[in-house]
Formats: sequence, C-alpha cells, structure tokens
Amino acid sequence: MKAEIIAVGSELLLGQIANTNARYLSERLAGLGIDVYWHTAVGDNANRLAEIFRVALSRSDLVILCGGLGPTKDDLTRETVAGVLGLPLQADRAWEERLETLFKKLGRRMTDNNRRQALVPLGARLLFNSQGTAPGLWIEHQGRSVVLLPGPPRELEAMFEREVEPRLAGRGGGAVIISRVLKVVGLGESAMEEAIADLIDSQSNPTLAPLARHTEVHLRLTAKAADRSAAEAMLSGLESRVRERLGPAIYGAGDETLAGAVAKLLLAGGWKLAVAESCTGGLLSHLLTNSPGISASFLLGAVVYSNAAKQDLLGVKPSLLREYGAVSEETARAMAENIRRRSGAGLSLAITGIAGPDGGTETKPVGLVYIALATPEGANCRRFNFFGTRETIKERAAAAALNMLRLYLLSNNR
Amino acid sequence: MKAEIIAVGSELLLGQIANTNARYLSERLAGLGIDVYWHTAVGDNANRLAEIFRVALSRSDLVILCGGLGPTKDDLTRETVAGVLGLPLQADRAWEERLETLFKKLGRRMTDNNRRQALVPLGARLLFNSQGTAPGLWIEHQGRSVVLLPGPPRELEAMFEREVEPRLAGRGGGAVIISRVLKVVGLGESAMEEAIADLIDSQSNPTLAPLARHTEVHLRLTAKAADRSAAEAMLSGLESRVRERLGPAIYGAGDETLAGAVAKLLLAGGWKLAVAESCTGGLLSHLLTNSPGISASFLLGAVVYSNAAKQDLLGVKPSLLREYGAVSEETARAMAENIRRRSGAGLSLAITGIAGPDGGTETKPVGLVYIALATPEGANCRRFNFFGTRETIKERAAAAALNMLRLYLLSNNR
Repeated sequence: MKAEIIAVGSELLLGQIANTNARYLSERLAGLGIDVYWHTAVGDNANRLAEIFRVALSRSDLVILCGGLGPTKDDLTRETVAGVLGLPLQADRAWEERLETLFKKLGRRMTDNNRRQALVPLGARLLFNSQGTAPGLWIEHQGRSVVLLPGPPRELEAMFEREVEPRLAGRGGGAVIISRVLKVVGLGESAMEEAIADLIDSQSNPTLAPLARHTEVHLRLTAKAADRSAAEAMLSGLESRVRERLGPAIYGAGDETLAGAVAKLLLAGGWKLAVAESCTGGLLSHLLTNSPGISASFLLGAVVYSNAAKQDLLGVKPSLLREYGAVSEETARAMAENIRRRSGAGLSLAITGIAGPDGGTETKPVGLVYIALATPEGANCRRFNFFGTRETIKERAAAAALNMLRLYLLSNNR
Repeated sequence: MKAEIIAVGSELLLGQIANTNARYLSERLAGLGIDVYWHTAVGDNANRLAEIFRVALSRSDLVILCGGLGPTKDDLTRETVAGVLGLPLQADRAWEERLETLFKKLGRRMTDNNRRQALVPLGARLLFNSQGTAPGLWIEHQGRSVVLLPGPPRELEAMFEREVEPRLAGRGGGAVIISRVLKVVGLGESAMEEAIADLIDSQSNPTLAPLARHTEVHLRLTAKAADRSAAEAMLSGLESRVRERLGPAIYGAGDETLAGAVAKLLLAGGWKLAVAESCTGGLLSHLLTNSPGISASFLLGAVVYSNAAKQDLLGVKPSLLREYGAVSEETARAMAENIRRRSGAGLSLAITGIAGPDGGTETKPVGLVYIALATPEGANCRRFNFFGTRETIKERAAAAALNMLRLYLLSNNR
C-alpha cells in the first residue's frame, strides 16, 4: 500500500508554520506498515490543488489531505476533491444540526460558510471531529482511499487516532517500521561512539542512530518487520545490546526526562533534597519541581546570585568567598553542606559557575562550573568546563548536577 | 518567478523529523518576493527523486533541493540531479583538498564516499559550507535555476544566507511578503479580540492574525507589497494602530521574551529584585536569570516548597500558615514582604499556589495561585485561577508575576 500526504494551506508556503501534520501522520502510518512515498504542500489554490490531487490518485493507494476544511472562502479542499472525483456535494443533516446547536450555545450567528462544513461528497463517510467544527471525510473511489482531515494538529491527531487508524489497521501489508528512543547522559560523544560504533555502523535493520542534544544524546532504535510484534522483538534485542554497553549512562526512554528520572529515584528512596544554585539561576529547582508529587522530597531551593545572598541565606563565610572566590570548589562545597544542614535534607546539590556571556577571566573563563553533592557520607565536588550560550551553559550545568545525583541514588537506593 | 522546494530524506517520510527546512526557506523566499508554489518531500530513492525533479523543472523557475548531499550511499541528490540534467560530474580539486586537510586534522581516513562530496556537475557553481563537509551547488540550466543545499538546518541556513540569498536578491519580481510579530500578555483572549476584532476581520493586506500561546498571545502582522520598504511601511502603519488599541499589553516584538523585557526594565531603572516561589518551583528565577547582566539586579530567589522552608528561610509565621494556609493572600504577602526586607531589595515577588495534579481541595482547587508584589510603596496581591497541566500552571503563574512587575516598572521607572 503506497500512501501520500498532501497538506493544503498558503501559510505553509509562506513559511509561517512547519508541516508538522505530515510528520505526525508519517510516523503513525509507518507504525501501521503503510509506506509513505510522498509529502506535498500546496497553497489555497483550487487549480494547483486539483493538479496535485490528480497526480496523487495516479500513483498512490491512500491519499491523505490535511487542511482547507474550514469555513472561510480560502478553504477549498472539500470542493476541489469532490470536483476531481466527480462527486456531488450533499448536506449532512446530522452535522448541520450539530453546528446549529453549537452556534446557538455560543450565541453566534451561523453563516452559509459555516454550513459548507456539513457538505459531504456523495458516498463519503463523515469522520467525527471531537475538537472542532469541521468533520473529516473518507472516500473510497476506484480502488483508492482518500481521507480529508482538518489542519489544526489537535483536531487532526484526535480524528486520526479515533476515526482513521482503526480503519487502516491490517490494511498495511507493507513492513511495519517502529522506533524507540533511549536517552543517554554524562558520556562524551566520542566515548559513546567508541562504545557502540559497531552497532551504529553494522546494522541495516534494526538501525541505531545517535542524535546529540545540548545536554544528552538520544539513541533512536528503528526496526522494520512484517508485523508489529516482530519489530518490537528486534527493538528489544538491540536495546539489550545497547544497555549492556552503556549501562547506567542510559537514564530513560521515550518521553522520560532526566529530572523526571531523578525525581522517581528520590521518591522511591524516600530522600529529602535541598538545592543551592548560583549560575543556573533556579533552573535546577524548576526542572525537579516539574514532577508531580515531588513536594514529598524537595524541601527548598536557594538561588543565591549575589555574594550577600550566599552569606546571609547559606552562611557561606565571607573569608572563604574572599580567599577562593564565589566560583570555586570551596564555595560549592560550603553551599552544599550548609544548605543540607540548614534544611535538614539528607541530600543537597550546589552549583556555582560563570554562565556568561560576561564575567569570565583568564583563570575563571565563561563555562567554568563547580557542582557539589552533599550526602550523609560527605560532600563530593566536580569541576566542569561547559561551552555554549548563557542558556546552554545553564542547561548543561543543571543536567550535570542532576546526573551526579542520579548516579548516587542508583548506588544508594535500597 | 515560481519557486519549488524539494526535501530529500527517508527520515521525513518515516516521520522522524519535520520538514523545517521548507519552512525556513519559504519564509526567506517570501521576503525576497519569490513565490513558493510547492513543497515536496521524497525518500532516498533515485527513481522517485528523478521523477519529482523532472516535474519541478517543468513548472518552476527556481528549484531548491535540500538533503542527500552527505557521504553515505543513501545520499543521492547530487548524482540524480546531474543525471536528469545530463551533466557529467567532475571532482572539484579545491574542495577535495579542503576535505583532505580536514580529515588529516581529525586523524580520520578519508574514504571514496567522502570524496564524492567534492563532485560537481559540469558548469555548476560550488556553494561554500561553513558548517560541514558537503558543499552546495548552483546550476543554471535552460532558464531554470537549480540549487542544492545540505540537509542539516545549521548548514543549510548558513549557506542560504551567505551564498544563495545575495544571488537571488532583485530576482524576485513577485510581491514581497514579510511578517512582524507583536507579543501581548495579561489580556484575556476575548478582551483582546474585542479590542482589535475589526483590524483582524477587515484587513486583507496587511493581515493581522492572533496566535494564542499558553501564557501570551502573538499577533502576526503580514504585508504584501511591490518591494520590501513598501511592505515595511504597511507593517508599521498597522503596528501603530494595534499599539494604540492594546497599549502596554504589548510587551515586545519578534524574539523578545517577557522575562527579557522585564529584565531590561529592571536594569534601566537600577532596581534590585528578590523573589520567593512556592508552586512555580524556581521557574520565575530561571526565566529572569536567562538575561545577560541580570546579576546587577537579581539578588536572590528562594524556592520555599515546604512549610518549614517558608518559616526558616523567609520567616513566615507558623500561626499565619496555620490560620490561612500556605496558599493564601496572607502567606503570599508575608513571603514578598519578608524576602524584600531580608534581601535589602527594592522590589520583590512572591508566588504561592497549587500546581497539581494533586493537592487541590474544593475551596483551594488546582490552579489557584496568589502572587504578591512588594515595592517601596507597599505590597499588592492578586489571586488567579489558572487551568492546564502542572507545567502549564507553573508557566502561567510565572508569566503573571512577571507581568505584574512589568506594569509596575512601566509606571515607576524614571
């Protein structure tokens, strides 16, 4: 089964939005074993849309069009598709009534343009829109399946999952292609490449592709097989081999975040945590407190930007700040130890460094960051040299701190 | 001049990445007065690419292909385009030497596949790649311009701006289409629509389109004119009318952020700031400290998640917490006043609320947030009911706090 996706809308051709619907639909279709061979985007122009649609009908078994189902005069997809297929349009009484009820509730007048959204090509099946006023359409025509979906991603995705996917299941026939993402932190790119280079190079199916992000590396595992369960089994086999090589450098998979993984470990171990931040400016606290339920573990964060705050809030001695400076191992340790003692937490993290772009010197350049972890066994401090913009340095420092804590929790959680 | 963009890469058809290159190129071309009529994406398949490219040559004056210039056997764009145009490929000695030098420096062996990147169709002009190993190509052929760009966005964008845009300038001929974005905060959607509904509806050129984000509304102004300066003048005219209606609800334009606008006002007025956060968990401090130079204003932030932290770090009285609860106007005021006094800052913000998903009650539901601003004139507290996920509620609360501070600074900066 060959599939093709046509996105309709001048805003795409003006570069005002990216064609994220094509990405979403392609990923879902790959998971159903349906091969997508073409994406096309075309503006709100009936002639060019008709031409593109005719070409699609000539080469594809499944044509999915998105966008152009709205109530304005620029919305031409319904009429153009019906015209090319030679199908008359008829009002769907039930959908008209749904629209009338909706407009009455909103206290707005329903126009003829709104009424157009209830028009259905003869023989087409209407697809329910749980998020908006434009229904989708499914047309079977001379051995081709033509599906019209609304353009707003929220509407399109809800409709695809509810109305389209169930009808396509089992019709794929082609190979199922699915992916899984493993997330790696704390390993340099070259160290990671060395550890898994043979798996990256030698595999043509399943494949292993690294994608470097600011603070971590995502490994995408992709498998192609006759059906979903065979593809899943291939992914699991490859995943085991990758996990053998990288071990605890893999902090999670899929949508999981590093802070989320740390929060889970904190809660599982019944730990209390306090953090003191200078150059990360609250980012570490923010990331940790994104996890629901973290208030059972996270006691407090101190964003001690000024030296006065480091002294008053954390009791860092002025003599220590004078002798070693705010950006030093000694200050990082004192920040961690003092906030741990003051808060009564079992664990604490402290970060001090220079996020830039100004404030660097020859001996203490932008990107120099000290991170201390204080535990019941004592304090441990690491020195980092991060590069990048101010925001990137904040992100890298927060991630490094989270990872120090994660590795401690992995060894010490009972 | 009709333009068309062809993106090459199976990862697009598998939905692993979105076609952001087409968005970027379309926006730049619109600004040059070049009309883009089609986007196409096709996989790493020579036959389908050749077919698509032939169609593009038959209908477009400018065909831009992106992707498929890399060193692997899947990278077919260079050879396929040369084949369709009937142009032999020749090694570019200068680029070969550049690659040899680079590989020597990296201590890696250069393969025949790497050497393919220096192949150039007869008569083509090589486009410099400042970010990678694959040069771009510009081919003039029977009245058509064909441009090949590398797929990685960083390489493509640098090359387009340096090598392509200057050569396209003045060749547009069509209408120039440019946009400007104004950013609005603190106005409900319906209040904003009421204020500018006539400008949104009545305009066909320039147009005004609102886009609601979690914490703010972006107004996109778009103008179409014979040349750039005429289009800019139309945008400025519309911008003045919008600014008249919305006044200080517009905090900035383009890439500016709300926190950045607040940081600018803080620094301009020579203010010192301290913040105390409960439910936002450090997000407010993080946003403020993204601005370079903010250490001259931002003294400290306290993330007082637990009641103990509110008492110990901020001196909020246990009796007050017992009587009114941690999420109350009284606690918010005490947090703001105490951190202002303790830090010696002129201004302070405090946020306390329930970010959810758990912890809500009938009288204090998830999303209830109190925000207090303490100034030399006294403290002011507002009550909000935000909806959304935990992260959205954090974002909305931080934005509301920033906006309270912004409005104060607008009135009180000398």
